[in-house]
Amino acid sequence: MNNTVSQKPFLRALKGENLKSPPLWLMRQAGRYLPEYREIRGNVSGFLELCYTPELAVEVTLQPIRRYGFDAAILFSDILVVPDALGQAVRFEEGEGPKLNPVRSVADLDILSLDRLHEHLAPVYETVRRLSVELPDETALIGFAGAPWTVATYMVEGKGSRDFANARGWGLQDPEGFSKLIDLVTEATAAYLCRQVEAGAEVLQIFDSWAGVLSENEFEKWAIEPTAKIVSTVKARYPDIPVIGFPRGAGILYKRYVAETGVDAVSLDSTMPLDWAAENLQDKVALQGNLDPLLLLGGGEPMDREIRRILDRLGKGPFIFNLGHGIIKETPPENVARLVDVVRGG
Amino acid sequence: MNNTVSQKPFLRALKGENLKSPPLWLMRQAGRYLPEYREIRGNVSGFLELCYTPELAVEVTLQPIRRYGFDAAILFSDILVVPDALGQAVRFEEGEGPKLNPVRSVADLDILSLDRLHEHLAPVYETVRRLSVELPDETALIGFAGAPWTVATYMVEGKGSRDFANARGWGLQDPEGFSKLIDLVTEATAAYLCRQVEAGAEVLQIFDSWAGVLSENEFEKWAIEPTAKIVSTVKARYPDIPVIGFPRGAGILYKRYVAETGVDAVSLDSTMPLDWAAENLQDKVALQGNLDPLLLLGGGEPMDREIRRILDRLGKGPFIFNLGHGIIKETPPENVARLVDVVRGG
Repeated sequence: MNNTVSQKPFLRALKGENLKSPPLWLMRQAGRYLPEYREIRGNVSGFLELCYTPELAVEVTLQPIRRYGFDAAILFSDILVVPDALGQAVRFEEGEGPKLNPVRSVADLDILSLDRLHEHLAPVYETVRRLSVELPDETALIGFAGAPWTVATYMVEGKGSRDFANARGWGLQDPEGFSKLIDLVTEATAAYLCRQVEAGAEVLQIFDSWAGVLSENEFEKWAIEPTAKIVSTVKARYPDIPVIGFPRGAGILYKRYVAETGVDAVSLDSTMPLDWAAENLQDKVALQGNLDPLLLLGGGEPMDREIRRILDRLGKGPFIFNLGHGIIKETPPENVARLVDVVRGG
Repeated sequence: MNNTVSQKPFLRALKGENLKSPPLWLMRQAGRYLPEYREIRGNVSGFLELCYTPELAVEVTLQPIRRYGFDAAILFSDILVVPDALGQAVRFEEGEGPKLNPVRSVADLDILSLDRLHEHLAPVYETVRRLSVELPDETALIGFAGAPWTVATYMVEGKGSRDFANARGWGLQDPEGFSKLIDLVTEATAAYLCRQVEAGAEVLQIFDSWAGVLSENEFEKWAIEPTAKIVSTVKARYPDIPVIGFPRGAGILYKRYVAETGVDAVSLDSTMPLDWAAENLQDKVALQGNLDPLLLLGGGEPMDREIRRILDRLGKGPFIFNLGHGIIKETPPENVARLVDVVRGG
């Protein structure tokens, strides 16, 4: 890694440096709260079309960088491009979440194959390549994927879920069978992330959005082990690439996640007590987080106060400012501007 | 409290005794998984009618005691009888969750009043009274209520919710206004629970089913403080009554909950790491939990193994065996029989 790259504040924080003003980006920063995003989204028929059209995906990735000068841009894509590329077609219906024909047994896995993975995802790699050229020098480029457990929940439930009864039930009653699905997604995800690095991604984030519903045993098998495999596969080829893990809702289990996966940083959800995180995690990894998106939605004094509290509690070690979850689409863009001001010392 | 009462195993565990075979009951043990329950439920028009008809509520409370000989019976009722009694009518529609006309501002609270609380809830008290006579001598009687935060989520959202954006948003943006709602529910709940004790309840459980979505600040204001108020109000009048708290999903914050609310026991959800709970909580309170209801649904060897693991990890201090959440309605009754056998040493 050359000097220019390692001087990007975002990368310095990930290497363990404690910066006076923390680097800043926001999960789902490219999205529906921005009028310029909605305009582009309105011109394509489907959400995945946007993800698979490099020209448009590059444009929406850059929009929040132009507006707010965040320290990192995150590739515009979706965690479900992986099952889509494995052969389990994903549909996004207007006003609803994603829909897939569910896989619920080892026999169902026959429809899945790694053969066309990279061919299918080529437009994503092209987006990363173009972004690595077009981004401002000081802005880091984040690639990402869903963690196997979270991706598998959609593959098994066939849609979003509240209790993940099918996915969890499969894993509890037939761990061997379910692990075939997890292993396949793990392999695909590691390969997908390696290609993103080859294309120019400087950091990777692994989103385990539904890790919080798992018991400790399940968390070990379906969250820690697959993530550790992905991290080691990626790092075997790219030892310097920093990886951020986001086991959302994992609570006490953040500690084992940090100790056992090999990630360089963890993103904290908004329920995480800050003093506990600073004390138990920040000596081992950089922390990222964790403003409540509802406070950004509402803005005003409650938001300012919480931003300052987070800076105060987490700013004593390596730290990246972010939300605890993605931006809510009704968020006024001026609240984001205010957030940037306050984080940067306003 | 006389000697007969304090010899009930359930009450002994709540007083801090470590019993060789832990007392046992299951959340939602009176419910739709039992054919004898479904028969009675089929003969009444609405779910709340069942809660408000002492003859029927007593019968369904007793059904699982007859079948399985649990160490405790829990009053058959619903946490939403409190808003219903405050004047915010609750409807349960077939196949859907509860519906209420939402309250979303201080002005909306005008429809709520404590005046008719006890009159409205008189059938519940009558149910408790009859149960205290009809239960076997060794079976403890648990009264219960929802915690103010959890009850308030339904009052503000008007139905079940995934992210509780209206309730949380109100609390974040206008904590003073929202605390008027919380205070009213707190006062009603304390009064309701005191009456349950007068009618014969020997233990109280406070269900904070949605505590897990709160940040630490919110948890302090909306979960810990109201619960502490309820516990101190009840204990001022009935110093010997044990109170079990269930801040479901609170993770790390279980520790503050235990330290600051005054409860005698906490019920652990299925995501709680057992070693952490034994180490951080069990020297202060009795623990209850935490078999995953999905394991009870599936039964077999995975259930047996987890039951034994729980007994091994939590059985070294005061402990009550239970689930981590309510029984799933598709659970085969024979799996419950097997659970009872395994817990009792089979």
